Amino acid sequence: MDIKAYLQKRKILIDRSLEKQVPPAKTFPPAVHEAMRYSLFAGGKRVRPILALASAEALGAPVADLLPIAGSLELIHTYSLIHDDLPAMDDDDLRRGRPTCHKVYGEAIAILAGDGLLNMAFEVLSDPRRLKAVPAGRMLAIIRELSTASGVFGMVGGQVVDIQSEGKEVDFPTLEYIHTHKTGALIRSSVRIGALYARAGKRQFTALTHYGEMVGLAFQIADDILDLTGTQEVIGKDVGSDLKKDKKTFPSFYGLEESRRRAVEVAEKAVHLLKDFDRKADPLRELAKYIVQRVN
Amino acid sequence: MDIKAYLQKRKILIDRSLEKQVPPAKTFPPAVHEAMRYSLFAGGKRVRPILALASAEALGAPVADLLPIAGSLELIHTYSLIHDDLPAMDDDDLRRGRPTCHKVYGEAIAILAGDGLLNMAFEVLSDPRRLKAVPAGRMLAIIRELSTASGVFGMVGGQVVDIQSEGKEVDFPTLEYIHTHKTGALIRSSVRIGALYARAGKRQFTALTHYGEMVGLAFQIADDILDLTGTQEVIGKDVGSDLKKDKKTFPSFYGLEESRRRAVEVAEKAVHLLKDFDRKADPLRELAKYIVQRVN
Repeated sequence: MDIKAYLQKRKILIDRSLEKQVPPAKTFPPAVHEAMRYSLFAGGKRVRPILALASAEALGAPVADLLPIAGSLELIHTYSLIHDDLPAMDDDDLRRGRPTCHKVYGEAIAILAGDGLLNMAFEVLSDPRRLKAVPAGRMLAIIRELSTASGVFGMVGGQVVDIQSEGKEVDFPTLEYIHTHKTGALIRSSVRIGALYARAGKRQFTALTHYGEMVGLAFQIADDILDLTGTQEVIGKDVGSDLKKDKKTFPSFYGLEESRRRAVEVAEKAVHLLKDFDRKADPLRELAKYIVQRVN
Repeated sequence: MDIKAYLQKRKILIDRSLEKQVPPAKTFPPAVHEAMRYSLFAGGKRVRPILALASAEALGAPVADLLPIAGSLELIHTYSLIHDDLPAMDDDDLRRGRPTCHKVYGEAIAILAGDGLLNMAFEVLSDPRRLKAVPAGRMLAIIRELSTASGVFGMVGGQVVDIQSEGKEVDFPTLEYIHTHKTGALIRSSVRIGALYARAGKRQFTALTHYGEMVGLAFQIADDILDLTGTQEVIGKDVGSDLKKDKKTFPSFYGLEESRRRAVEVAEKAVHLLKDFDRKADPLRELAKYIVQRVN
């Protein structure tokens, strides 16, 4: 299959759905709606929603009704980017090749745009229109999955440890905690939300969960490598920002070549975990490979 | 009835429930858990959860299973206080008589503690243990109610307009927008969540909604008056902080005496809206009166 064409098609579907879920920029008060849209429609690749769709697809479920649910993963992802970029946090000026939200709208509006997107994810998931396609019990399980991945036991926890580790000697377990929580939790959750939506059986759910963990890890190693080797054009943010901030990364523990080798190995593990799935899981398989292709 | 004793008893119930819902301070990573608890257990009066309980009580529903749901209103309220106090926002040093969260834990942890509490509200509401007492469909309606009150169409929207109005000539409709969104939305939502939990009929739900709106307004007028006339000891934050920031308030439009008169009038309206309820609604009636007693 042509994974690039697949990703492009899926991105268009997700963007179209997000466009409908998020209020127009002119909605009162416009500042926060503009800021939310500025960050949400900044050219993100929609990896998380696409993983959710591919996961449901692997189980043979039609994905039309999953689109707004998958979009809520992007609302959560964007909220976390806006807050992480704040001066009090990672203090980043560039994101996806453009000035960060607080650089354009100021810190107050950026904090509130993040809060707005975070709340909106749960507004979308609890929208009674969802109930036409998904019974309430399953929607609740999806909300539980997303809020846990986004909160103190997921992304928030990871960001706390990341912030506290800056400029310190960090051991590998700490780096692993940061990776599995700051990035890994929501990626795993994306796959699991697709699986919950598609009523995965217990064994399928476990396999997809582990697949999500491996893909999250591969994604993070690839990201660390790109921060070292990519150009600003490719990665859309300051190059070498991890080094500048003295942040520990995968390559700083294992070197560039070994990190590349591990990224490929982890992606292969992800593919192997899908061995009991038929060809409907090919998009998941290709996605895992694609993530590490970027760095090899 | 002795409203003070009632409030005291209810506050203890709520605090005990929150204590169980929120992870211990030593949970990893401790900084964010300590910060969340610091702000959550800072002696808040638990007005919002108590309103939810009193609303369900007015409809004859037992409230034991409502406690964690009502507690999520306090998680949301506390998140909003932490974020509103940030230097980029209202820049407040004192809250409930103690240094604000960012003064103690730093800005990064304060932002993340707010994010953690916001996510946790939805983790609590989607906890499968809730389903023993409340069917999934009703829990979804409660999540929809809370996320809408907390997001861009509620508190976030109100805070945006409040921030943007600082130092500007503000007309009364703008002040009203700020009041009904920044404070009013969550107070109204508290009453409505109690009503949803207790399966209110359509007319009851409408009456309780309007009651919640009146109580929210009375609460805000009282708060504005206390900011002018209270001592730091009574109000637990900087006195005259609205004046210092040149913020428009109810008294700045109508003067102190007229504001007092209106507060009482609005509380009476709230009581009148409960005319078709029996004595089980007495706590709601007394609550409305109590809110404006503080300033008379």
